[in-house]
Amino acid sequence: MLFKQVYQYIVGKIERNEWLAEEKLPSIRLLADELGVHRLTVFKAYQLLKENGKVLVKEKSGYYIRAAHQMSDALDPVQEAAPPTSLGELKNNLSEIQAVPVAYQFSQALIDPNLLPNLFLSEYVKKVFDIYPKLMGSYSSVQGDIELRELLCRYIADKHKVQLSVNEIMITSGATQAIDLIARLYIRPLDTILVERPTYSGALDAFRIHGARLISVDISSDGYDLERVEALMKQHRPRFFYMNPTFHNPTGYTVPSAQRKQLVELAERYRCLLVEDDAFHEMYFDQPPPSPLFTYDTEGWVVYIRSFSKYVAPGLRICAIICRQPVMGPLVTVKSLSDNGTPLVNQKIFLHYFQSERMQQHLKKLRIALQVRCDIMEAELRERTNWEWVRPRGGLNLWMKLPDAFPVDAFLQACFQQSISFVPGTICDPLQQMKPWIRLNYSFINEDQLREGIRKLTDISRQFKA
Amino acid sequence: MLFKQVYQYIVGKIERNEWLAEEKLPSIRLLADELGVHRLTVFKAYQLLKENGKVLVKEKSGYYIRAAHQMSDALDPVQEAAPPTSLGELKNNLSEIQAVPVAYQFSQALIDPNLLPNLFLSEYVKKVFDIYPKLMGSYSSVQGDIELRELLCRYIADKHKVQLSVNEIMITSGATQAIDLIARLYIRPLDTILVERPTYSGALDAFRIHGARLISVDISSDGYDLERVEALMKQHRPRFFYMNPTFHNPTGYTVPSAQRKQLVELAERYRCLLVEDDAFHEMYFDQPPPSPLFTYDTEGWVVYIRSFSKYVAPGLRICAIICRQPVMGPLVTVKSLSDNGTPLVNQKIFLHYFQSERMQQHLKKLRIALQVRCDIMEAELRERTNWEWVRPRGGLNLWMKLPDAFPVDAFLQACFQQSISFVPGTICDPLQQMKPWIRLNYSFINEDQLREGIRKLTDISRQFKA
Repeated sequence: MLFKQVYQYIVGKIERNEWLAEEKLPSIRLLADELGVHRLTVFKAYQLLKENGKVLVKEKSGYYIRAAHQMSDALDPVQEAAPPTSLGELKNNLSEIQAVPVAYQFSQALIDPNLLPNLFLSEYVKKVFDIYPKLMGSYSSVQGDIELRELLCRYIADKHKVQLSVNEIMITSGATQAIDLIARLYIRPLDTILVERPTYSGALDAFRIHGARLISVDISSDGYDLERVEALMKQHRPRFFYMNPTFHNPTGYTVPSAQRKQLVELAERYRCLLVEDDAFHEMYFDQPPPSPLFTYDTEGWVVYIRSFSKYVAPGLRICAIICRQPVMGPLVTVKSLSDNGTPLVNQKIFLHYFQSERMQQHLKKLRIALQVRCDIMEAELRERTNWEWVRPRGGLNLWMKLPDAFPVDAFLQACFQQSISFVPGTICDPLQQMKPWIRLNYSFINEDQLREGIRKLTDISRQFKA
Repeated sequence: MLFKQVYQYIVGKIERNEWLAEEKLPSIRLLADELGVHRLTVFKAYQLLKENGKVLVKEKSGYYIRAAHQMSDALDPVQEAAPPTSLGELKNNLSEIQAVPVAYQFSQALIDPNLLPNLFLSEYVKKVFDIYPKLMGSYSSVQGDIELRELLCRYIADKHKVQLSVNEIMITSGATQAIDLIARLYIRPLDTILVERPTYSGALDAFRIHGARLISVDISSDGYDLERVEALMKQHRPRFFYMNPTFHNPTGYTVPSAQRKQLVELAERYRCLLVEDDAFHEMYFDQPPPSPLFTYDTEGWVVYIRSFSKYVAPGLRICAIICRQPVMGPLVTVKSLSDNGTPLVNQKIFLHYFQSERMQQHLKKLRIALQVRCDIMEAELRERTNWEWVRPRGGLNLWMKLPDAFPVDAFLQACFQQSISFVPGTICDPLQQMKPWIRLNYSFINEDQLREGIRKLTDISRQFKA
């Protein structure tokens, strides 16, 4: 993987005329030192440049950049209409799958809009505009509406017994923005980031466009191998460990309490931030999950991303980042440059709805509805396949192991044909392997569609057996 | 300026242990070649590193990085609690000034919320929720609600006689996000960007955190010196020219029609994108401004940022980016990684309000109200000062030249004491000079406050006359 990043780095330099045609490339040793990578990595990158005709090798002299006209005599004028972008691997894998319109949507980790109390919400919006008649004319502060931040401080104190100040909370537009702000602030090209394997593919894409080197930590239903986490922190000094320890996406696993405290200690010892993404905390089935890692944090090494977007009101996209001042200060500046603050309208509607009695009732019903859908999906799969999975205790997804060597990509294409989608495991895997795994989401379509969709999906899967 | 960027670049490498203690720095020639800067620039950066104790000079050998313990024996543990950020000059100058709470607000280029039809807007919101009862449960597509993009296509076709497809429009959360997405996509450290002098300071900050080298083009009431623009494009091959040619912020100037076509030709010839920020287009006094540059663009070299946030409903933060497919494709991906799409609620409310009859009436009244406020501010200043300015024909600001050597910074501090704020010219200047200039905004406070505030401000200014 890494040599491709080095390759991209050099191609960028060439494309942008920072390294000019006919110039000699730096020696392998020099570039390896400069980028902090192994010489073999640079060597492999240079080999690939040679294979792709970007450089020439002159005997006993070194690698020379080929002139542009030699590289691309017949440039497509349309492709060349705009300057090349500065972002290397610009891709959002998950968006591409989710953009395919299908009837049986098993790829969206979203909650069925019919499970939200829409009528009540609309009534609520009307009330909010009565309370703040000039809401439409007003901006939020960059860090977020103070009234909302106060509410969330009380909520966190009440729920997790942690005292926060309003300066330790920032409102963002969804967890996507929160992850992006953190990535922008902390990742430079070739920085090491720890990620779970598997993990949320949107985060992988966000880290990759910043040129991060991703090192993975396996997650199982028992959590992580903490010795490995420690060894990786010690060896690679990662900028942060991005984790989703509660009803983990895509697996549904929850890291046990005992490990949480130890992880915070490791973070402190190795000065590695823990970026704790906790979007599913309230979506448990039988009993609440263990306390978030950030509740164990006394020295400021956890950045806690608590999204309310999925279960409160996706249309509003409200998420909170909770962290201590040394991280919050620069985060607020990046937020100011990113969008100057989340729209006030969204924050005020959220504020009033979130503290309503109705919201609590909704949440109780939602938990039951999700569990029912999960049960239906599991029953159908148990009856019709020999696939393996661990029963989740919350969250929105089932993580399925299909038979070894099952051709998941061909299966997905066949499913698309029948208006069914799911997420192939490879895109959740930082190493882009995990071939026979898939993620099936049970929260987005209704019970009948769910049954029907799983029957169709399992029927299609039979084509690929034999 | 540039040598400081090189300095920052090296300090970053050292702080992040990419270049290790006791290692030798690259030779001046090598680094100058690599960064594409003059050797003298690198020399100056190395001198500054030496002065600041970051490096040691060994006779006839070169520059060596000092060990960390030599550099900073007494690191503040709190400052060290989080890893250093990856962003060099992380600052938002304008936010800092605007964060000071004052009664006489002349630093916010915003429209007084009392000038917006708030009651009507609130009623409108209620209607929208009746039309879309499940709005709160739904996400927008990344590029923006299709119904809204269709409306904006018709609006642009109608207004500017340009046919667009829905794929050539993206909805963003305010112009701030639009500028940020473009900066993220096109700027790499040390890239050259053309900017006006003076210009919107938020854009300067956004470009600086990406490490851009800013080269300035003076703007006057006659527009730009096109020969200079051409020479700069030829010499520096800038990634783009960020411009605000209509009721320019901060000066209020409008680039004349004749220059607009020529600028598009220059952009095509030198393959330099024009990023046309056009937030004030509808806020004219007597007659509409010339057509945007993008209407002259046939080959896709203009990226048009049309914000509706200021005059339609700041609480919604709706802005559109209009550009051709080669630019739009990667922009949509960056948007997907940034926030996965602007909240749908905001787009739907905007959509229905924007096409209402009431909106058109509001806009007519708003133009008159702004002109009246501008007139009042000018009358007060004319009577009480010898400051110089060019009467604007639209927009939200007056750009004032104070007497030479006027101590603007001390003046601003004295104004803060009396609960008055304005924007000092230096932060609007890419070269951070323009000392005797200030920007006064006339759109945010009401007519009485405006009179009172300007009287107080001019009284304070007399302290500094001598």
